[in-house]
Amino acid sequence: MNHSKSKKYNYKIQARGYELDSYGHVNNAVYLNYAEQARWQIFNELGLLDQFIASGMKIVVIENHIKYIRQIKLFDEFEIETQMEKSAHFLLFKHILTNTKTKKTLSKVMVKTVFLDENDKPCDIPESLLETFTEA
Amino acid sequence: MNHSKSKKYNYKIQARGYELDSYGHVNNAVYLNYAEQARWQIFNELGLLDQFIASGMKIVVIENHIKYIRQIKLFDEFEIETQMEKSAHFLLFKHILTNTKTKKTLSKVMVKTVFLDENDKPCDIPESLLETFTEA
Amino acid sequence: MNHSKSKKYNYKIQARGYELDSYGHVNNAVYLNYAEQARWQIFNELGLLDQFIASGMKIVVIENHIKYIRQIKLFDEFEIETQMEKSAHFLLFKHILTNTKTKKTLSKVMVKTVFLDENDKPCDIPESLLETFTEA
Amino acid sequence: MNHSKSKKYNYKIQARGYELDSYGHVNNAVYLNYAEQARWQIFNELGLLDQFIASGMKIVVIENHIKYIRQIKLFDEFEIETQMEKSAHFLLFKHILTNTKTKKTLSKVMVKTVFLDENDKPCDIPESLLETFTEA
Repeated sequence: MNHSKSKKYNYKIQARGYELDSYGHVNNAVYLNYAEQARWQIFNELGLLDQFIASGMKIVVIENHIKYIRQIKLFDEFEIETQMEKSAHFLLFKHILTNTKTKKTLSKVMVKTVFLDENDKPCDIPESLLETFTEA
Repeated sequence: MNHSKSKKYNYKIQARGYELDSYGHVNNAVYLNYAEQARWQIFNELGLLDQFIASGMKIVVIENHIKYIRQIKLFDEFEIETQMEKSAHFLLFKHILTNTKTKKTLSKVMVKTVFLDENDKPCDIPESLLETFTEA
Repeated sequence: MNHSKSKKYNYKIQARGYELDSYGHVNNAVYLNYAEQARWQIFNELGLLDQFIASGMKIVVIENHIKYIRQIKLFDEFEIETQMEKSAHFLLFKHILTNTKTKKTLSKVMVKTVFLDENDKPCDIPESLLETFTEA
Repeated sequence: MNHSKSKKYNYKIQARGYELDSYGHVNNAVYLNYAEQARWQIFNELGLLDQFIASGMKIVVIENHIKYIRQIKLFDEFEIETQMEKSAHFLLFKHILTNTKTKKTLSKVMVKTVFLDENDKPCDIPESLLETFTEA
């Protein structure tokens, strides 16, 4: 039994025209926008978002590692599978982007985050979030 | 003597208001915009940009690794020091962002790229660019 | 009977976390991203997109007029209703953004565009598109 | 003597690679980013920024009107001339973007804003700002 990993969350998203760069494919920086949105989505789905914003806590990215495997074109639909993993007082997010039509992997994004309290000091991962790690 | 690394290039930049996110600091994805702009700048400075665009070649990012060391706030001025490094047929860019006032390191960005020819096939790093590696 | 206006198209969209600015609401520039995406969507829905891209034609924005009526917050869901209108050789897009839950109007965006041929010269609105103006 | 208009402020800026869209020119929404940055710059130049942020007041855009006259390409340098104008309790910003090399006008942007107090209620334009209208 492993309590340091959450279950996997899925979020569907579609590439938009203004996300393309002069090469006609989604710009490399936009992948981080997608990953960020998947994280907001998880917090929202868990009902933690309002509580989290009200607490004055922040979740801050301290490292991003992105592998670009296949390019994303206009209107491509893809799924972001996200798994959270506790590592010391860091919270890792492992995102895998998969084209929903071709089932091919588009990108892998590893994001290392830390929580800051209302005084911007690093703090523990909130209990309400950790509980999600022990769920079925 | 090491010909696989270029000299270091410097590019000054300043954080803009619309680059901040709801936390009031520069959003994590924007660092990739900064790094990308530093690369465009180098190509322009080397007089390779028009030639490169005309050739139909593309330079495509296949991996990004960003460490966020200190946050960047509105109007912060910083310098992006960039060194290129040839590694097999990949071209690596190592960017270091430093606050020009405090001299503190803000972020380190490692970008792995590959060149594609006009048919989108991986190709060698252009000779005109490689010549910059053997310069003083 | 009025053939200078198209029927109304609807596109649903949801505000994302990275679209917020330091005020915690969707940044004013992002509304133009939303409107642009609604236009891409219409072209795609009409089956004109591939044909249009292949033709080398471009559709270029020459004027935008945006009224911001209510702010958009994280995860707000809204609908963009778009009507196209031919005016001389210009194509106007009238977008109305409405919150799907509250039914309140969020913004009105008027976009004036012109078509450019493969030599970047202004040209007539493509016939295949104009046909949509006479449909039921 | 006209005290409802400020003097003209100038801000130089250069188009960046990631601001281009799939048409290879600066995307229409980015012009609003440029205009916003010019406004932040003025507030900073006037020494009002910290005071303004500390006050809890916000300046909110309620209308944007942009005319796109010439396209902006990679590395184009341009100047944003901004004049503020008081109109009832609204503050208008009139931005003119001019290519610094060709001296040709690129775009005109009219932005209508309103100030909100710490409770998000519309309020008067701050005195410290209005004083700038009577200078020189």
